Amino acid sequence: MRVRNKPWAKPYIEEHPNLIVTDPVPLKGNWQSRFSAVQPLHVEIGTGKGQFIVEMARLHPEINFLGIEIQTSVIAIALKKVVESELPNIQLILSDGADVDTFFDPNEIDEIYLNFSDPWPKTKHEKRRLTSAGFLKNYQDVLKPDGLLQFKTDNRGLFEYSLVSLNNFGMIFQGVWLDLHQANDEVEDVQTEYEQKFSALGPIYQVIAKFNQA
Amino acid sequence: MRVRNKPWAKPYIEEHPNLIVTDPVPLKGNWQSRFSAVQPLHVEIGTGKGQFIVEMARLHPEINFLGIEIQTSVIAIALKKVVESELPNIQLILSDGADVDTFFDPNEIDEIYLNFSDPWPKTKHEKRRLTSAGFLKNYQDVLKPDGLLQFKTDNRGLFEYSLVSLNNFGMIFQGVWLDLHQANDEVEDVQTEYEQKFSALGPIYQVIAKFNQA
Repeated sequence: MRVRNKPWAKPYIEEHPNLIVTDPVPLKGNWQSRFSAVQPLHVEIGTGKGQFIVEMARLHPEINFLGIEIQTSVIAIALKKVVESELPNIQLILSDGADVDTFFDPNEIDEIYLNFSDPWPKTKHEKRRLTSAGFLKNYQDVLKPDGLLQFKTDNRGLFEYSLVSLNNFGMIFQGVWLDLHQANDEVEDVQTEYEQKFSALGPIYQVIAKFNQA
Repeated sequence: MRVRNKPWAKPYIEEHPNLIVTDPVPLKGNWQSRFSAVQPLHVEIGTGKGQFIVEMARLHPEINFLGIEIQTSVIAIALKKVVESELPNIQLILSDGADVDTFFDPNEIDEIYLNFSDPWPKTKHEKRRLTSAGFLKNYQDVLKPDGLLQFKTDNRGLFEYSLVSLNNFGMIFQGVWLDLHQANDEVEDVQTEYEQKFSALGPIYQVIAKFNQA
């Protein structure tokens, strides 16, 4: 997602050190200290403008949510939503989600969300896709043994690739949805800004998988 | 697929014992004897009217093809195509594909095709779906260690179920296509009668998977 540079973004982020972390490495192993209660930790990599993670935090007060986003002008918009929500169970990280293994201890995370990640369609960019083997290894390192990876996209090529990649990595599928908004079962679907805007153009795909047999 | 009863079907089948087998169990381990050359054996379970398997046999003279279909009036139409094709590398079986483990020896088959299988949408009928664990076990028993299962359907619910079922069984995905007729890569797609008739209504899904790491 590209957005215009926002001059207010950087100072706004600096005004809210209690809600957004810009140097995550020192908090490795201690993320629960950022929240008012010790409870399961769910992390969204590529939080964008924050609609998904803020709504999830509102719906699930029993879970702590952490949204990671690399673009200052984008996460500033998410931060506004966090400030307005006044929720105690949501925090943001301004940093590169590719480095999660340096931000978290093993077993520190209960669930990871990837929503509408960059498809990087060229084969030579495969390693940049957030569902490629290198990233899956990082997620495995920081997730609890029975922790879940939940991935949602409208990009057919990326989803085809991801099903094969997760399967070949040995991940165990809990569920696959090939048109999430037409699903017959009652699946929770908190939507991102992007999803609301573009889902009319085609199906939303989702897979939920884990690394280990329970 | 339901078709009207065809009085000519049974006598026509009886006239062609060289092309169609109605008692497959005695041929267990000896299917190559039905063909003019010993070469890889590909089996379609639920051959229907035979367009797929006959066209595959035409395109791949280096492979022996075997189509299994349970309905007399349906396989008689496939048999007509086989007779007209005059190909040496195709045979039919009039029997229940659910029993493949009683028709074949271990390692006797190189590849199995399931095309537009009955979706059996009710949960209580899960075990009748040809991609459920019980059937996968049968396929594993008769396929070579690196043998492939190729499954194609237009039924979204059945495909979602099948991806999870194959994955949970430990099968290794070689490729997934979520809109086969719009695929970017050059994938061979020999179409069934059903596929030609109904693909305009929605995407055709396909997965190719195997049971063992090569």
